[in-house]
This record gives sequence, C-alpha cells and structure tokens, in this order.
Amino acid sequence: MTVTADRRALLTGAAALAAGSVFGFRPGPALAQSGDLPAIQAAVAAGKDASTARIQDWIRNPSIAAENLNMPEGAEYMARLARDAGFSDVEIIPTDGHPGVFGVMDVGAPRWLAVYFMYDVKQFDPAEWSSPPLEAALVDKEGFGRVIVGRGAVNQKGPEGAFLAALHALRAAGKSPPVNLVLVCEGEEEIGSPHFRQVTTRPNVLAALKKCEGVFIPTGWQSPSTGAVTINLGAKGIIECELTASGAAWGRGPARDIHSSQKANVDSPAWRLVAALSSLVSPDGNTPAIEGWFEHVRDLTPRERELIAASAEANSEADAKRALGVQTWIDDLPWRQSLERLASQPTVNIEGLVAGYTGPGGKTVLPGSGTAKLDMRLVPNQTVDDCLAKLRAHLDAKGFPDVEVRFTGGYNPTATAEDSRIIRAQKAVYDRAGAPSTLYPRSAGSWPGCVFTDAPVGLPAGQFGLGHGSGAHAPNEYFVIDSTNPKVAGLDGATLGFVDFLYEMASIS
Amino acid sequence: MTVTADRRALLTGAAALAAGSVFGFRPGPALAQSGDLPAIQAAVAAGKDASTARIQDWIRNPSIAAENLNMPEGAEYMARLARDAGFSDVEIIPTDGHPGVFGVMDVGAPRWLAVYFMYDVKQFDPAEWSSPPLEAALVDKEGFGRVIVGRGAVNQKGPEGAFLAALHALRAAGKSPPVNLVLVCEGEEEIGSPHFRQVTTRPNVLAALKKCEGVFIPTGWQSPSTGAVTINLGAKGIIECELTASGAAWGRGPARDIHSSQKANVDSPAWRLVAALSSLVSPDGNTPAIEGWFEHVRDLTPRERELIAASAEANSEADAKRALGVQTWIDDLPWRQSLERLASQPTVNIEGLVAGYTGPGGKTVLPGSGTAKLDMRLVPNQTVDDCLAKLRAHLDAKGFPDVEVRFTGGYNPTATAEDSRIIRAQKAVYDRAGAPSTLYPRSAGSWPGCVFTDAPVGLPAGQFGLGHGSGAHAPNEYFVIDSTNPKVAGLDGATLGFVDFLYEMASIS
Repeated sequence: MTVTADRRALLTGAAALAAGSVFGFRPGPALAQSGDLPAIQAAVAAGKDASTARIQDWIRNPSIAAENLNMPEGAEYMARLARDAGFSDVEIIPTDGHPGVFGVMDVGAPRWLAVYFMYDVKQFDPAEWSSPPLEAALVDKEGFGRVIVGRGAVNQKGPEGAFLAALHALRAAGKSPPVNLVLVCEGEEEIGSPHFRQVTTRPNVLAALKKCEGVFIPTGWQSPSTGAVTINLGAKGIIECELTASGAAWGRGPARDIHSSQKANVDSPAWRLVAALSSLVSPDGNTPAIEGWFEHVRDLTPRERELIAASAEANSEADAKRALGVQTWIDDLPWRQSLERLASQPTVNIEGLVAGYTGPGGKTVLPGSGTAKLDMRLVPNQTVDDCLAKLRAHLDAKGFPDVEVRFTGGYNPTATAEDSRIIRAQKAVYDRAGAPSTLYPRSAGSWPGCVFTDAPVGLPAGQFGLGHGSGAHAPNEYFVIDSTNPKVAGLDGATLGFVDFLYEMASIS
Repeated sequence: MTVTADRRALLTGAAALAAGSVFGFRPGPALAQSGDLPAIQAAVAAGKDASTARIQDWIRNPSIAAENLNMPEGAEYMARLARDAGFSDVEIIPTDGHPGVFGVMDVGAPRWLAVYFMYDVKQFDPAEWSSPPLEAALVDKEGFGRVIVGRGAVNQKGPEGAFLAALHALRAAGKSPPVNLVLVCEGEEEIGSPHFRQVTTRPNVLAALKKCEGVFIPTGWQSPSTGAVTINLGAKGIIECELTASGAAWGRGPARDIHSSQKANVDSPAWRLVAALSSLVSPDGNTPAIEGWFEHVRDLTPRERELIAASAEANSEADAKRALGVQTWIDDLPWRQSLERLASQPTVNIEGLVAGYTGPGGKTVLPGSGTAKLDMRLVPNQTVDDCLAKLRAHLDAKGFPDVEVRFTGGYNPTATAEDSRIIRAQKAVYDRAGAPSTLYPRSAGSWPGCVFTDAPVGLPAGQFGLGHGSGAHAPNEYFVIDSTNPKVAGLDGATLGFVDFLYEMASIS
C-alpha cells in the first residue's frame, strides 16, 4: 500500500462491523438457517484488509488489450487469483487474440452457477487523474468514505475482488459455497470481446457452463443518493470500428500529407471522411441513417415500457443530468421518454476523430487520410454481422466504396428472462439489503452477455453486486471500501451480498 | 558541424568553382562592368564553409511560434545575424506577439531595396525524419549532391543564409552593396504573421521601407529536373482558424467526455462539428459553400490566363503529380485548367481533426467537444476581415451560433505589378543564369506580402533566389549546398545569384 492506512477510519469501520451495522445486510432464509453466518461475518471482517490489498495489487498490474499491455501477465495473474480463491482445474485458454481463463469449484452442491470476470481495463491518461491511476491509493472521498482510486477500481476489479473476498471468507469460515461454481474470464472486454466465444465454446468450458443456472458478472453500481440498483434484463450490443478515408484507397487526393495550398486543385480525404460520416446519421446526429438499419429493430414491449416508467419514477432525473454534465436530453425529451430512447434506440457515435495535424496551433497540411473511431450500439434484433454488412453496403451505395471500415470488436445484444432464477435471486438479495431495485429492460451500455445467452451456451446472464464505484472509462475511477454513506455498501457489505446471493441461488425455487 | 566534411566532395566543389563552372552563373552588365566580380567570386568561394556552418547553426537553434519555443532567443539570434552581415541600427521590435527585427545598411547608394526574413520554422516530429531535424547534417542526396537536412533548411534559413553569404562576400571583397538595404524580420510567419504589421508600420521602419524599390524574401525553389523557377506576381491570402463544437457552448450534449452508451439520449458535439463542417463546402469538399464567399472573388484576367498557360507548357504535369503523390486533379481537370483552379480559387481546407479518443484502438466515449483546424486560402479581392465575418454569419445562419471560430492567424492576398523593377530584375537574373523562369499570376501558397503591398507600405513584393531545396512543412526538409545536379545552383551559385540581383536592382531602368 502506498498510502498509510488511516487508523481512525479503519477503527470506525471495524466498530461498525462489530455493531452489526454493515450496510443493510440481512441474510436470506437459506443463509440464516445454515448457521454459517456468524463465522462467515467474522471471516469477512478479518479478511477485509487482505481483500482490499488484493484489489489494490490487481489495479497496480493493469492489462490493456487496446495497447497490448501485459496481456499474458494479466491472464497469469487472473489464474493465480482464481486458484487462490479455491478454483481448481484452472486453465489459461489461448484464443486468436488474448487468452481467457477458466476454472471450476465443484463442491458437490446440487446447483451450478457461472461467474464471468474481465481481467482487462480501459486505457487511461495519467495527466487527467488527481491520484495516479496505477497507484490504487486509498483516499477519503467526501460523501463516500474511504475509496480506492485507480483504473479498473469499479470496472471491474473492485466488484470482482469483492466476489473473490466472499470465496475467501467462506473458506476461512470452514464453509463450502452452497453452489458449485464455474469461472470464465476474458482479457478483451474493453475492445469488444472479439475472441471470447472461443473460450465459452471450448468443449470442456461449454460442458461446464451447460450445467449452470445462469451466469453473472460482479458489479458495484449502487446509487450514492438512494442506494438503488438496476437489474438489467439485457444489454445492447456494440460494433466498434474505424472509418478511414485515404488518398491511397480513393485514388484521388494525396497519398500522404501535402502542403495545404494544393487544396485548390487536389481532393481532400479529410473532407471525404466528413461527407461519409454525414451520411451515417440524421442531421442532428441522433438517428442512424444507414440504409436498412432499423429493419430488425423491435419496438419496446408493453412490459418494457412499464419497467422503464417505474425506473423513471424511482430514479432522479436531476441526479442523472448532474452526473453526466448534461442540461437536456435529445429533442428535449421528458425523463421517461429519454429513458425509453436510451433503452430502445440504436446509436452511431463518434468516439474520436483523427486527421492531419492534431497538435497545438495549426499546420498548413492537406492530410493524406482521416479516421473516425465509431461505436454503434445495437438493440434486439440487430446483429453485428447484419449491421456490418449494411454499413458497408450503405457506404458503397452513397459513393464511398473506398472508405475503409475496420471492425475492431463487438457483439450482439443480449436478453435474459425476467422470471429466470438469476434475475429473481438478485431482486431478493437487493430487497433484503434495503437497496431499492428496479428491473430495467436493457442496459444502454454493452457487455458480452450474448456470448452466454446466444446459442450454444444459452444461459440466463446478468450483473449482480452491492457496493458503489464510478468513473468507468473516465479519470479518477473509484470503488468504495469503507462507506460513510448510509445508502451504499462498502467492501464488507458487498462481500456479504455475494455470499447471500450464492445461498439464494442455491435455494430459490 | 556534426558530420565530418566529405573532403572529396568539397574538393570537387572547389575545383568546379575554380573552373568557373558554378551553376550557369553569368553576371549582368552592371556587375560585369563594375570590375568587382573576381574579388566577389573569390570571397564567395572562401566563405562557403562559414556560410554553410552559419545555416547549420541557425537550424540547430529553432524558433517555433506555434509552440512558443525559443522566440526571444530566435529574435536575438536574428539580430546577431543581421549585425554580423553588416546591418546597422539593428533593433528587436516588440509586438503584441513575438518580436520582429529591423536593420538598415545605408551605403549611400542611389536606390534602396528591402529584404524580408522569417526567423521561425514549422513544427516537426523527429520520428518522421531519417536525419534528425535539428542536427542540420550534411548528407549526400542522390541526384542532388551534398545537402543540409533539417527543419527550416529551405523554409527559409537556407535561402536566407545564402543571401547573408552574399553580404559577407561583398564585405570580404572590400565592396559595398550596390543598393542600400532595409531588413525586416518576423518570427510568426508559420502562424500567419498575426503581428507583423506592427513591425512594418513602426514609424522608423515604415519610413525606411518607403524609400525602397520593393521588397523580396530569399528563396531556393529551382525545379530539380529543369532548373526552372516561378516568378510569382502575388500570393493567396490565408485564414487559419479552429472550429470547435462543445457541449459547454451548445447547452446540449455533455460538458465533458461521457460513456458512449449515452448517445441514445444525449446529443453529440462531435456530430455537431461534422454537420457544421459539412455546411462549409460542396459535397465533394472542393468549393467553399459559405454564404457570400465568392462576392469579391475576381476572375482571372486574360493576361493571368496567358501566364498560366505558359506555365503549364513550361512545367511537367507528371513531375508535379509525382512530387505531390496524387494521381488526378480535382474534377479530373487537365493540367492547365488545374493550374488555373490552383491560382484562382479560394479554398476551405481541413488541416486537422481532433475529437474524443485519438489513441490506438477504441474507447467508448461520447466526446464533450470536437475541433477542426482549418485553413482558408483567399484570392483577390477577398479580405481576412470580410471572410471571417462571413464565416461567422454563415454558421449563425445555418443554426450553429455556438460553434466557436478561433482565428489563429492570417493575411490578405498580395499582388505585385508585372512591370515593377523587382519583378523585371528577377527575370533578368534568372535568364542570365539559364534558369527558365515563368511568370505566374499568383502563388497558391501564402506569404505575408500584403503587409508590404497593402497600404500604408505600398511596395512591390516578391520572392527571389537560385538554388534548390524541398520538404517545407514536411519531414526531411533539405537545401542543396554542393550541387551535382547541373540544373540547380548550390550554395555558391545561389549566393552569386543574390549578388547579381542586387547589382541588377541598382541598375535596371
């Protein structure tokens, strides 16, 4: 640890735990009746410092697929974490990209549950951080308590570390998990999981997954103002790609950057990029205009609209706007309609633009090429393959056959039934913990749940976790360790939440 | 010098000079009849190593206005070069930006001539260079001979250094220049000369300039295949600016980069930038579509068309295409028409695009802002002030009042009469040197000649120089010192060319 522990904060946390006042934790009947609880609670408390240090050390060892940074090392690290937590038959599984990791914990329980981990993190620019992104410093954050600041803190090493803490606590308490576990991990989540299907469809991995009730990824997304969590019944899919216009491919314009005075008689690939981009969306940039893009888009069902309406009621529009730094939604939509749009609409977003001279001041060049980094969110029943084909056909039809589309990653939308055990178990644990939960038809973000929900795996898939962090993909990402906010769980509460979730999955009808 | 001189090459050069075979140099009547020539020729040869070293040392001390790099130091350096060359009353002239430099060499001659120097250079990325850009190494370049490679080698320290070499040679030969000289220098040429008018309109500078026949900037642009040079009768003007769309200014979209999943209900400043850009040009990117942009654009005159036709005859289209790396001109125009378009048409060019994530791979952000770096070339009778006002009015009218225009520099077009002494003297010296010259109505590039040709200075202004270099604003910029190419002058030939030009300016009718 690079920061001297604040003894007062630790003592306060310990006192709170001793007094049984860990964030709203009330065990379910299965856990309560097991008689295991006192020993587990003591083990969670005793293991907290080690669990915190485990998350910090993991953050200090980042793997970034987009930069090909420490990928084999990250897989080895992940495998070690799995073995340390009690998984056996842990394997590093090579793919055509970066490796996955697989492990099993067969305790002879009647039911099986799968857990999905990502061991990679998003890129970062240290200059933008107030605490170094790889230091994983413990700092006091006003309104939250003691938090870890670092890349991956909430996305996803903190919540994954809390789940590992639950397994360590069970073992320390002399207990086996109440369900058998399958662990599948990938290192390419942040680049669109291009090879994860190669992991889940390996015969031994697929056979293990097929036994499971469902699969979940550990999360820690409680609202800081209400403690609320959203139970997503699915997520949008995504295509990430780069659109490039170049003189070389076009046969017009320069093959490389030339002096800008030539613009009067030489065509510009940068302007061609702008024209090609303009054709992809409505003039306001908000609706895809790619030919046939909405062909397979299905409208929200009445039940989905009902769920969104309930979510709009349960969540604060002002909080959401403040968190995002926005003053108004698209088309000045009211809150509920903005959420319907968020859940139901496919998008074509510019992640980044790069052409010519990008440094300080100007430089009189006519660039030889220009690139837009795009991400496109897909909704049921769009698919990556169909949409990529439509994008290519659209550019060809609009007169841009030379504009290159480089697909860098993505996956289909995913959906899980509201009445599946994994969804109902989440709700039960959240309810007991006093965390208001709202069922939501579809996350606007993406996760590779389709790898599980699509054939051949065909499992219900979801996200679960108490606790809180924020700043995924942004500077100063954090995860709460010692919560001073009565609405959100700290690491201990999140850990006990995972224990309760395992007991619930073992016993739910 | 960082490179050991290649003795054989130096000896070859000395032998060539001794044999009187310096590139096509034939003195004009004024110089021939002065009796000064033998002493001057000997002084040029004797001073060549020092002149070469002077250019190298200057390149090793770069000033880059765009990066605020060594600007006071560059002005001091420039002032020292001026004093060393024999200018008196040398002053560093402060401006609201970076300083200018002024000096006078009053030898009591009947006529006065002004010389314009820039002491700044363009930015560079060392990674793109085969020889370090600040090393100013002497290297053998196939087809050219011994060249200096470095930032500023041809734009403009090499040619300026050759002119200084001419002054040193005259003094070493015990001769005064045949005309009195005024030297005006700036350090902001590469950022559009935003403050140079403050230098030229200082009372003492203006008074000195008013005495002059004209003003020229030393150049070294002989064609490597023919030795040809272009005598420009003017140049386009330029506006450099940055267009920025941001959530902060717009009141829509995010104030900073947020997660891209929000694109479904949050507006995108990057798409807004694309839409605003699209409105500025025709769909092919080749014709400005800004309301009123052509209001003051005057068509080519018959004489201008005649000059362009002659230039098309005299220059190789294939060479031009090869040098630029282009396969075709705009609209597949034939050579002559492409040159008419080059000379006559205003442009709106994208120098650079920067938004969101610009690193390797992707990053799922919805950027809070996006910026396009633009340069716009202006033709007679457009003006910077009028065009900037039209750009703003256009964006406002198209619904983009929030899209910010940050003007970073620029100046008006410039024109000089074909029958002015400075133009006729150029032609006479080029003719004698055997360098085919073509009069050209207007350079498509820009130089701040308007600072001289506009009121209150009102001087004819041009560019003059023998010699050859290339790579301005590009990697591996070079200037020929010892020419093995019979078509182009080396440093000695360029130096003697400047001497002859001074004598011609003193004597031309």
